[in-house]
Amino acid sequence: MDLVLVGSFGYDTISTQHGTVEDTLGGAAVHAGLAASRVLHQEGRVGLVSVVGQDVDPSDLEILRSHNLDLTGIETLEGLTFRWTGRYEGAMDQAETLNTDLNVLQVFNPKVPEEWRSAPYLFCANIHPAIQASVIEQMESPALVAVDSMNLWIDIEREALSSVLRRADIAFLNEAEVRMLAEEPNLVLAMRAVRDGSALSGGAEAGRGPPILVAKKGEHGLLMIADGYTIAMPAYPSRDVIDPTGCGDTFAGTVMACLAESGVENPTEKDFRDALIHATVAASFVVGGFGTAPMVKLDRGTYHARLDRFRRIIGA
Amino acid sequence: MDLVLVGSFGYDTISTQHGTVEDTLGGAAVHAGLAASRVLHQEGRVGLVSVVGQDVDPSDLEILRSHNLDLTGIETLEGLTFRWTGRYEGAMDQAETLNTDLNVLQVFNPKVPEEWRSAPYLFCANIHPAIQASVIEQMESPALVAVDSMNLWIDIEREALSSVLRRADIAFLNEAEVRMLAEEPNLVLAMRAVRDGSALSGGAEAGRGPPILVAKKGEHGLLMIADGYTIAMPAYPSRDVIDPTGCGDTFAGTVMACLAESGVENPTEKDFRDALIHATVAASFVVGGFGTAPMVKLDRGTYHARLDRFRRIIGA
Repeated sequence: MDLVLVGSFGYDTISTQHGTVEDTLGGAAVHAGLAASRVLHQEGRVGLVSVVGQDVDPSDLEILRSHNLDLTGIETLEGLTFRWTGRYEGAMDQAETLNTDLNVLQVFNPKVPEEWRSAPYLFCANIHPAIQASVIEQMESPALVAVDSMNLWIDIEREALSSVLRRADIAFLNEAEVRMLAEEPNLVLAMRAVRDGSALSGGAEAGRGPPILVAKKGEHGLLMIADGYTIAMPAYPSRDVIDPTGCGDTFAGTVMACLAESGVENPTEKDFRDALIHATVAASFVVGGFGTAPMVKLDRGTYHARLDRFRRIIGA
Repeated sequence: MDLVLVGSFGYDTISTQHGTVEDTLGGAAVHAGLAASRVLHQEGRVGLVSVVGQDVDPSDLEILRSHNLDLTGIETLEGLTFRWTGRYEGAMDQAETLNTDLNVLQVFNPKVPEEWRSAPYLFCANIHPAIQASVIEQMESPALVAVDSMNLWIDIEREALSSVLRRADIAFLNEAEVRMLAEEPNLVLAMRAVRDGSALSGGAEAGRGPPILVAKKGEHGLLMIADGYTIAMPAYPSRDVIDPTGCGDTFAGTVMACLAESGVENPTEKDFRDALIHATVAASFVVGGFGTAPMVKLDRGTYHARLDRFRRIIGA
């Protein structure tokens, strides 16, 4: 196993100006997994740790398996699968959550399969920070641990989230979440405060934050700050923004898969830039349709044509 | 004369979380002129067309002259100089106008000095579109005409603005203005509608819009769409955002000065990318202090160090 992903598995009901879909396959681990499987496409390279209820549609699991994702880490519990209902309006830069039913996520106690614990790359996609912490603890000595999160956990689980962020090598956060965590409107200053730990529970005295911080800016691209260098990159200019759900998960999943693919334990600036270019292009496909459909049907030719176009647009 | 600039000359009263300055030298032509003078620094290359009142401080005109800007096109009229009072809050991405006194701008009837009319490059910085149109008409056959504007003119002078935009080779607009003009939240679609003329008064039947459109996105950089190619570029990640006033004027003034410096009549993608990199870096300095002060005191060493750093950040 090269890359272990933990995060939610769910069914989403999503409304945008382009329509509504009900109970469509979604969740952070699912989106990140599908993205990672495009890069690490041989069997046995990407494993998902998540939980589903007894109502899970076997054909959805089949979709994931057909992408060579290892589902040994997905537990089935009594009850219903996690459900999220959300809406996007206007420029669609932020989801409005209409309803969340945690269901089986509420009682999920993740168990990383024994043979996955030595995997070098771990991505904790968005899920309760206590679950992320538990997975980090079960891993032996991963070379790179990445963490994503959401505004909800900043609001109600700041301490648990802070502790997870201190254990991460890389954090992926929306820019609004970085500003919120640091209570600082200037993104560069807010990122500095997260990285040096002063924006986290316990402050800088409790240790530094994630040395590599990627602020995801949606249609405005990204800003990544690491020790010694900074990368700024615009998004792919999309005219077909149908549904942004899963965009951030796809983005982070692709970055981690690219790093895992190159096999480096200490990725360089160039490794990251390449990974971020792939991630930006992958994310641009996800927003072009509802749920996981765009990634499931994406073919290599279409992907690589856009990758070329994006490199030209940014002058890379 | 290589580059003629028309736009406002004014005194600004600006409040941000970092303080307040009163009646500081400002105006679109002033900011654009100072920016252009950094690139085209020999005497007689940049001329300003604007208007001041009898209350203009001679030392402010001296500052502009000391940057080798030709002020022959600046008229002095009876009355007071244009004044603007504005405020920025939070992430400082938008100015809130508290007061505008047009004063002499209200009766300004621009006269382009005879010997400037053959100049190859014209930049109409923000000012009433009728004044922009008058200046365009007085020019003989400029190789490149660029136009900037503001939300006010979209609101109250859409027809006059549309007519100016149809005569422009390049338009610089804030992304919010592009969306507003096109009544379309997706920026790429909105830009297409401005470029093909369908978002302008009279619609696409009345002719196309500006073939080259630069959407200025403030701290999120820019998106430029031209016939056959697209350029996306992030902003320089600034931690010292003191006052964004003049940022857009500095940006556009620098682009036009770089194009004028290279002397090309049909700038290539590479010409634009280089100009946009310079413009982004120049703009990053303006936001680091109030009014024109940062550009007036900027030295070449500091500028070029940041230019190098920015090229690395974007991987150019």
